Amino acid sequence: MRGMIREQEIIKEYEENGKVQEVYLDNSATTRPYDEVAEYMNYINKFIYGNPSSLHKKGIEAEKMMKKARQSIADTLGASPKEIFFTSGGTESNNLAIIGYLRANPRKGKHVITSKIEHPSVLEVFKFLEENGYNVDYIDVDKNGIIDLEMLKKKISKETALISIMYVNNEIGSIQPIDEIVKIRNTCNKETVFHVDGVQAFGKFKINPAKSGIDLLTISSHKIHGPKGVGALYVNEKVRIKPIIFGGGQETLIRSGTENLAGICGFGLACEICNENINANWSKVLEINKYFRNKLKENIKDIIIISPEDASPYILNVSFKNIKGEVLLHHLEEKEIYISTGSACSSRKSKRSHVLQAMGLSGDIIDGSVRFSFSEINTLEEIDYTVDALKEIIPKIRFK
Amino acid sequence: MRGMIREQEIIKEYEENGKVQEVYLDNSATTRPYDEVAEYMNYINKFIYGNPSSLHKKGIEAEKMMKKARQSIADTLGASPKEIFFTSGGTESNNLAIIGYLRANPRKGKHVITSKIEHPSVLEVFKFLEENGYNVDYIDVDKNGIIDLEMLKKKISKETALISIMYVNNEIGSIQPIDEIVKIRNTCNKETVFHVDGVQAFGKFKINPAKSGIDLLTISSHKIHGPKGVGALYVNEKVRIKPIIFGGGQETLIRSGTENLAGICGFGLACEICNENINANWSKVLEINKYFRNKLKENIKDIIIISPEDASPYILNVSFKNIKGEVLLHHLEEKEIYISTGSACSSRKSKRSHVLQAMGLSGDIIDGSVRFSFSEINTLEEIDYTVDALKEIIPKIRFK
Repeated sequence: MRGMIREQEIIKEYEENGKVQEVYLDNSATTRPYDEVAEYMNYINKFIYGNPSSLHKKGIEAEKMMKKARQSIADTLGASPKEIFFTSGGTESNNLAIIGYLRANPRKGKHVITSKIEHPSVLEVFKFLEENGYNVDYIDVDKNGIIDLEMLKKKISKETALISIMYVNNEIGSIQPIDEIVKIRNTCNKETVFHVDGVQAFGKFKINPAKSGIDLLTISSHKIHGPKGVGALYVNEKVRIKPIIFGGGQETLIRSGTENLAGICGFGLACEICNENINANWSKVLEINKYFRNKLKENIKDIIIISPEDASPYILNVSFKNIKGEVLLHHLEEKEIYISTGSACSSRKSKRSHVLQAMGLSGDIIDGSVRFSFSEINTLEEIDYTVDALKEIIPKIRFK
Repeated sequence: MRGMIREQEIIKEYEENGKVQEVYLDNSATTRPYDEVAEYMNYINKFIYGNPSSLHKKGIEAEKMMKKARQSIADTLGASPKEIFFTSGGTESNNLAIIGYLRANPRKGKHVITSKIEHPSVLEVFKFLEENGYNVDYIDVDKNGIIDLEMLKKKISKETALISIMYVNNEIGSIQPIDEIVKIRNTCNKETVFHVDGVQAFGKFKINPAKSGIDLLTISSHKIHGPKGVGALYVNEKVRIKPIIFGGGQETLIRSGTENLAGICGFGLACEICNENINANWSKVLEINKYFRNKLKENIKDIIIISPEDASPYILNVSFKNIKGEVLLHHLEEKEIYISTGSACSSRKSKRSHVLQAMGLSGDIIDGSVRFSFSEINTLEEIDYTVDALKEIIPKIRFK
């Protein structure tokens, strides 16, 4: 088949050239599924093909595999499987959390809070809420991309139904002070529900939403070497949400539609694999990040490292003076080094990053910024190769 | 890995027993992905893992594969790729078509029409619309499960924004007179948009929505030997819809969220494979269906074949007198024959089929009914084996 032919070509390429030189530093956009995940999905597609809603053995078997995946994800979060709802990904989970909660709780107030640096799948939902009679406050961030806790304190009122703040920012890696936010919420209005977009945090460090006071948590598969097209929403057992997609009543009535079984199973396995080594992976990526920061400072003049020192090591945002980020991206691409300008979601639009703008950065700095994002499968050798490439490229493409 | 161990066990089982005796007659619930589709998805997962929104080569490569899949689907429908929007499946497509159209066209009227025998992913959306100020008419069906065209004619008014009628019913296979419906719509209110849930029709016979006067068409992957968790909505270029999931603006702003690339590619390939042989497959399944009908009549007493003669041959609904459908299902399961009672979506609920009720069938007939649903990969030998099983089981489990 057409797929197979191309696969053989690539394998041949590997054999002939030793290894295809490919340095993938765009892991916050998406990751390469673990081989075990891809093989497991292949097995599910071929053998466990029943509809989990079917009453017969093929259905029961499919349901069991789904249950196993749900348990894997629940275990990682210290949650009950009943608190995990599978969706088509992080975007849908964010939509379901926010719209689904407000739809189920119309009397909790008409005020909602988020930050200025959220992912579009949160910000666009808040725009939709504004069009539908909700009052929205967008919390400012400081120069390190951390939300203004004083402002948050002032904005929470009896009318505040929901707060949505991301755990780790996808463009710069800043980690929000979730514990502080929960304390403020608990003091100002205990009834306010707290939703966290945990897409860039999940699988990177341990999260226990119940212990942390997070009521709704969005997680995604394809950022942790699982397949694209699947995610989940953690909903604390005390919180009630309504569906945003209606139908046969799958996922205990919260998410209708025949389940993406292979995707869900792949997600469950990716979750197990990355959580087995979660601390070791963090340490390894931290080493890569520090090594890269130091080599950049030593070797490239006129740069600003935008990601704060205490950001998630998985993301490193750097601005090169008198460089267009997109031009740099394409020059690195020529050397099989893959990075991004801002987030993948917005990279096809020629708009300046709302995150970097909220941090108060100038247009020049924003235009010269790119994001390197890592995984435990990256190596220090890849960083050496990348810095060598930058040393060669930067002087060539700097204007003035 | 855990997946692999189980796969090896199954392969061993195959080798030892020649072939695992498994007669899968539940193809309307879901189908087994073609081997080529599973392998192609495996290849995509391993090698084409970029985010289609990424600016670099890995992203462009991913986008190209998605474009190819979109073209395959568009070609099958005689449509433009711009008219195809990928979703997480048939349920989401139905939701997007109906809610998305009404949201984009609030001035087209507050009246909507559907039938009494739609899939829950349409009926539940209409319930939601009723709760949100829409007037809904549910068109009756006759004893063959065909909608009452006279009633439809009477109900369409200047206020009718949308009609949603399925092409092929998922429980009994009745084929709705789409051309007649379009004529009535064109006469009564040309502005009324016509949505068709084509999930059980797509890949079974040629559909050209533009030529037929269908404005919005829902299709799904996992009913045509593609993966679960992916579907599409055809939207005629003249029709405007709004998203129901908000975010990064993928699918030309209509469906946000990182695309399920492997799923989409698998869907595209399944679409190509099944459309290459669409007429031959129909003929083969028609032969299977007729053969089964005749053998049933010859060998089993006191049965009512509920599916009309001119229904889709892919679905055969039969009621066995003084039998509980679910009991029969489990006895067949013991012999590795897999069927369903009603649709998979509602089979876990102990409610009587709304489709069979709308057809005016008595409770006894409904309780004794089961659905056999076919694919071109079924064989006449499997039908022989199934009829032999029925001959043995039915006398044992008949009450009175």
